[in-house]
Amino acid sequence: MVHDMIGRSDGLDAVIIAVGSELLTASRVDTNSLYITEILNDLGIRLAFKVVVGDDRAELRAHLAHALGRHPIVILSGGLGPTDDDITRDVVADYLGLALDESPVIVAAIEARFASRGWPMPAVNRRQARVPRGAVVLDNPNGTAPGLWLEPGGSMLALLPGPPRELKPMMQEQVAPRLAARAGGVTLSRRAITVAGRGESAVEEIVQPIYSAWLAQSPPIETTILASVGQVELHLSVRTVDAAAAAARLDAAVSALAAVLGDDLVSRTGRSLEEVVGDLLRARGWRIALAESCTGGLATSRLVDVPGSSAYVERAIVAYSNETKIELLGVPADLIAAHGAVSEPVAIAMADGVRQRSGVEIGVAITGVAGPDGGTEQKPVGTVCLAVTGPVTVVRTVRLPGGRAMVRSLAATSALDMVRRALASLPGPA
Amino acid sequence: MVHDMIGRSDGLDAVIIAVGSELLTASRVDTNSLYITEILNDLGIRLAFKVVVGDDRAELRAHLAHALGRHPIVILSGGLGPTDDDITRDVVADYLGLALDESPVIVAAIEARFASRGWPMPAVNRRQARVPRGAVVLDNPNGTAPGLWLEPGGSMLALLPGPPRELKPMMQEQVAPRLAARAGGVTLSRRAITVAGRGESAVEEIVQPIYSAWLAQSPPIETTILASVGQVELHLSVRTVDAAAAAARLDAAVSALAAVLGDDLVSRTGRSLEEVVGDLLRARGWRIALAESCTGGLATSRLVDVPGSSAYVERAIVAYSNETKIELLGVPADLIAAHGAVSEPVAIAMADGVRQRSGVEIGVAITGVAGPDGGTEQKPVGTVCLAVTGPVTVVRTVRLPGGRAMVRSLAATSALDMVRRALASLPGPA
Repeated sequence: MVHDMIGRSDGLDAVIIAVGSELLTASRVDTNSLYITEILNDLGIRLAFKVVVGDDRAELRAHLAHALGRHPIVILSGGLGPTDDDITRDVVADYLGLALDESPVIVAAIEARFASRGWPMPAVNRRQARVPRGAVVLDNPNGTAPGLWLEPGGSMLALLPGPPRELKPMMQEQVAPRLAARAGGVTLSRRAITVAGRGESAVEEIVQPIYSAWLAQSPPIETTILASVGQVELHLSVRTVDAAAAAARLDAAVSALAAVLGDDLVSRTGRSLEEVVGDLLRARGWRIALAESCTGGLATSRLVDVPGSSAYVERAIVAYSNETKIELLGVPADLIAAHGAVSEPVAIAMADGVRQRSGVEIGVAITGVAGPDGGTEQKPVGTVCLAVTGPVTVVRTVRLPGGRAMVRSLAATSALDMVRRALASLPGPA
Repeated sequence: MVHDMIGRSDGLDAVIIAVGSELLTASRVDTNSLYITEILNDLGIRLAFKVVVGDDRAELRAHLAHALGRHPIVILSGGLGPTDDDITRDVVADYLGLALDESPVIVAAIEARFASRGWPMPAVNRRQARVPRGAVVLDNPNGTAPGLWLEPGGSMLALLPGPPRELKPMMQEQVAPRLAARAGGVTLSRRAITVAGRGESAVEEIVQPIYSAWLAQSPPIETTILASVGQVELHLSVRTVDAAAAAARLDAAVSALAAVLGDDLVSRTGRSLEEVVGDLLRARGWRIALAESCTGGLATSRLVDVPGSSAYVERAIVAYSNETKIELLGVPADLIAAHGAVSEPVAIAMADGVRQRSGVEIGVAITGVAGPDGGTEQKPVGTVCLAVTGPVTVVRTVRLPGGRAMVRSLAATSALDMVRRALASLPGPA
C-alpha cells in the first residue's frame, strides 16, 4: 500500500536513535521522533531510518556506529539522566574516543535548579555535568540534563534529553539552527486539507491521478494521506529554495483537490471537523445543543476540545434511558414505542427537543447500537441514527463497522460532519 | 529516569524491522511492533531493538544484515504488497542469495480472493506469489500477501504483511508457535495493577524499594511503570518455566504493593478507573448521573467506553451556561451570583441537581476553568471544582496543570477517582 509518495532527496539524510528500555515495551511508543521528524522535514532534511534501543551499552554503540557510518546527521534522544541506566553520554564519548570532563558551569546550573526548590543537589546528578571533550553544551531551561552537540568527522550528532518538554524546545531553538546552517537554504512549504465522508482508500483513489502528475514535476509536490477515525488529511509539501514559487504551486494544487473532492472537503487549511463546525456556527452567531445516546458525550467532548467553544456549545444531554429521552428531551413515548429508540423519528425528536428546550439554532441527536450487546437482526450493532434540526433538518441512518469504540467514534464524527454539511448548505450569512 | 527495571535475559533476543516510508513521516507511528512485542514477551523473548526503514532497498538490506548479525530472531513487517514500493520479499531473497519462484498455489489463492468479489486478479499481484526458495509460506486469510518464514543459518526470520488485521493473526497463529518451539518452555507470567491519585514519579518513589528487592531474586520480578493522564499502571512479570511458582510470587508481590499504595490502589487486576467505578456501581445495583461543565462530556464518555455501562450511566447534562445550570440542574441563581459558577457550592448543587432529577443514587459534577481564557487571579486556568453526592457527599477544588486538553482530561479522571473513593468508603453491599 502506497500511502506516501516520497521522491528521493538529494540533500541531507538523518537518523533518529531513541534510547530507553521503556520504549521497547508493548505499551510505549517513541513520540519524540515524530516531533524531530517534523523539524527535520521543515529544513528539507529527510529521515533515513529510526531506531529504538534499550539501556544497553553494546547495543547502543553498535547502532551509533551503524548510523554514523551511513548518514551525516544522527539525533539521539533519551539516556541523559543521572542514573546508571542513563548510558547515552558515556557510550557516545567512548565510541568517539573523547574524555568526559565535569563542567563546573553545568554543576552550578544544576545546583541552582535544585536550590530554587529548596533542595540540595543529589550527588548522582553530577553525572549530568560531564561533557565529552570538544562538545557544545545545549542549555536545558526545562530540566537538569543539558544536551550535547558534536561534529565528529564532519557529521552532526545531537544528544537530547528524553522528556518531550525538554527535548522539543532544545530541538527547535538549538539544534534546528545548526542543521539549517548546513542545509543550504532549502525549506519545506506545506499545505494540509481535511476531508470527511470518504475512507482513506476512496480519497486515495480520487486524488491519486492528480498527485501522481505532481510527482513528475520539478521539484515534486509530495503528498501524504493520513487517516484517523472518519477523517482524512492530505498533506502536500514542496522542498525548494524558492518559497514564493512553492506557495503558488501549492495553492493551485489545493484548488485542484478541492475541485474533485466537492462537499467532502472540510477545510482547505487543515482545520479539523470540530474546528470547522465551530467556525460555521460562529460566522452566524448561532449556538448548538446535542442529545447523545450511544456516543455518551463523545461528540460534545470533541466540539469542546476547541478553545472558545463555550461561545457556541450551549448544552448537551446524554440520554440513555427511554425515560430520560421522554423527560429531558420531550420525545413522545408513543414514538419510541412505535419505532424503537434507535430510529429516525426518535433521532429527529431528540434533536428538536434539545434544540427547542435550550433555545438554540441547531440541534443534533445521535442514537444507535454501539455494542457489543443490543443488536438485532433489523438493527445490528453499528446501526446509528443521526439527526440535525434547525433552519434545515437532516436525518440519516448509518451502519458503522468495527467494535464499540470505533462505532462510537465514527458516529460522533458522522454527526459533526452532518452539522457541517447542513450549515454549509445554507445561504451564506449576511 | 528509570521507568523500567529490566534485567538481562539469558534467552532469545529479537529484532523488529518495520518497512514503509509512511512510517517515517511526522504523523505515523509503527503500532505493529507493540503487538509483536507483546507476543514475544509472552514467550519469554526479549526485544533487543526495533527499527523503522523506508521503502529503500539499500537501507533495508543494511538493517537486515545488521539485525541478523546480532540477534537470532528478526521479524519484518510491511513491504509485501504488490507494487514496486513493496521491497521486503526481494531484498530478503537477494540478501540471502535465494531464488524467487512463483508459487502456482499462491497465485490460485489470490485469484480466488479477487474472484470472490467478482474481480479479475490484477497482473501486478503475481508478485505476491513469489517465494524465496526454501521458505515456508504463512497463509493470510485476511489479505492477498502471504507471510514467509525462513531459518537462515539457524536464525529465525519472519516476513509479515503490514496491515494490522493481517499481521496480528499471522503473528499469533503461525509465528508464535514456531518461536515457542525454540524458546524452551519459558513463559512470561504477568500481573498489572492500576493506581490513581499519585503521579508517576510519586508512585515510583513509593514502590521502588520494593521492586528493587525483587530484581535481586532469581528469576527476577520485573516491573514497568506506565503513566497516562492521571492514572498509573504497574506491570509485574516473571519469566520462568515454572508458571505455578511464578503466579504465587506475583500474588505476594501485588499484596506488597497494595499494602503501601493504600486507597490509591484502583485495581489489583489492571482494571481501569472507569471499569472499577462501573464494578462498584453494579455491585450495589446503583446508577450514576453526571453534570459536566468544562469537561464537556469527557467524564461521561469515559464511563460509556465500558461495554454494558448503559446499565448504570443514567444520564449526563453538559451545562456550560449559567442558564442551563439553573434550568436543567436546579442550581439556585443566587448561589452562582454569590460564589461564581466555578465554586464548591455550585459543584454540589450541580451534582445534587442531576442526581435528584434523574432519581439515581450517585451524582457527579465538574465545573472549572479549562482555558486558555477565563482564568482570574483567584481562579486561574486549571481551577476545577468536583463534587460527588448521594449516600456520601464529597467536594474538592483542584488546581490542574497543563493546557486545555490536559486540564479537561485530568479533571475527568479526578472526578471518576472521587466517585471510586466515595463508593469504596461506604460499608460494603450486603
